[in-house]
Amino acid sequence: MTPRSAPDRLLSVLAAFDHEHPALSLTDISRRAGLTLTTAHRLVGALTEWGALERDSCGVYHVGLRLWEIAALAPRGLALRQVALPYLEDLYEATHENVQLAVRDGTEVVYIEWLSGRSAVGVHIRVGARWPLHATGVGLALLAHDDPARQDEYCTGPLASFTPYTITDPARLRRELAEVRRTGVAVSSRQVTDDALSVAAPVRGPGGAVVAAVSVVVPEADAQVPVLAPAVRIAARGISRGLGWRP
Amino acid sequence: MTPRSAPDRLLSVLAAFDHEHPALSLTDISRRAGLTLTTAHRLVGALTEWGALERDSCGVYHVGLRLWEIAALAPRGLALRQVALPYLEDLYEATHENVQLAVRDGTEVVYIEWLSGRSAVGVHIRVGARWPLHATGVGLALLAHDDPARQDEYCTGPLASFTPYTITDPARLRRELAEVRRTGVAVSSRQVTDDALSVAAPVRGPGGAVVAAVSVVVPEADAQVPVLAPAVRIAARGISRGLGWRP
Repeated sequence: MTPRSAPDRLLSVLAAFDHEHPALSLTDISRRAGLTLTTAHRLVGALTEWGALERDSCGVYHVGLRLWEIAALAPRGLALRQVALPYLEDLYEATHENVQLAVRDGTEVVYIEWLSGRSAVGVHIRVGARWPLHATGVGLALLAHDDPARQDEYCTGPLASFTPYTITDPARLRRELAEVRRTGVAVSSRQVTDDALSVAAPVRGPGGAVVAAVSVVVPEADAQVPVLAPAVRIAARGISRGLGWRP
Repeated sequence: MTPRSAPDRLLSVLAAFDHEHPALSLTDISRRAGLTLTTAHRLVGALTEWGALERDSCGVYHVGLRLWEIAALAPRGLALRQVALPYLEDLYEATHENVQLAVRDGTEVVYIEWLSGRSAVGVHIRVGARWPLHATGVGLALLAHDDPARQDEYCTGPLASFTPYTITDPARLRRELAEVRRTGVAVSSRQVTDDALSVAAPVRGPGGAVVAAVSVVVPEADAQVPVLAPAVRIAARGISRGLGWRP
């Protein structure tokens, strides 16, 4: 076993927390982080004292408010979200459907915002959720505007399938991406679950590079793409302007 | 100088980032964290590799997406926000005023959500902002439901003044808190800035303890407290129910 550095050990304590494990005992943390109980105890103590973790009245640890406050400074997290939120709300008001904002992290999209009216369809996406680029509308919008070499590399890689409709053929994916660039919107129909459709558009930063994507998800059965597409594009352009982009 | 522990040094790199300093060079980080350039370089490298920091094309460091994803698990951060958001949106729809959600951290409130229509008054509160408890509506709502001993300790402590209207007299603050408990809403009039008024109500967790507060902020000149109070109370109760509270 490679000796682990001090930063690596401390970060492994934070990495022990995820969506399936938002609350952990000291024993859980030591096991999940691969640390002895003594080391885990010392590191959890330091993180708790600093405010990165909080200990509840049952002795269980949660992610703490101070970590959240610092993480709120992430330009691709809450900071982007704060610029985007009014436009996402406008899009929600205009459509009353699920509205999402996502950024790219490697070969995946990460949802950083998700507005859902209580009347909207029950699509189970949460803030922080990840999906492969080719399956989702936001992923297609991000991938279509990546540099050609990276696009090509992604298209030739293995393309996971989630429904019989997920695009897994490289040539078809390339045609789809060309279509996204031509029309300015990406449509993912029944590729993630076989009853949902999403319409997405790219969000540009001050320099014109695509930094995020916005989408609406609707039941596929009565999806009206020609109606949704302009609304999504307008919201995406609004966020881009809010970020300092000028056409 | 006390020798600093490894966790302390690593956390001091994260703590170098704040709202005034969301983007830092390696030199900035080393200076703000009180580390040698060599140590800062090593720790920043480990944090960047892990994803807690991101380095942009100019060599400047920002808080990274991975830290944001883990911080999104904080029960008093994004997790609370996700339960609350639909109710905050309803409150915004009903009032078209600035809407906030805040939690307590020691003697301060921390704003964890803030919805503002482009038409609402320009109150300069941002996610992550902090204020002393006695000055704000949300702070008064949280303080009024704290245990009597802690309330008393706060009331006798120094009470900072922001406008001529800020309550700084312990006896008056105690009367105000009793009034908050009697009416179920807290009103802070011109205590933070001399033209704004906020109306706040407490949010309860599953066990009935007050865990957060929700408020609207309006221009003091045409504030209609009797109209706003029921809307704020209903939103606070909705969030409480969403968290599992049963009256």
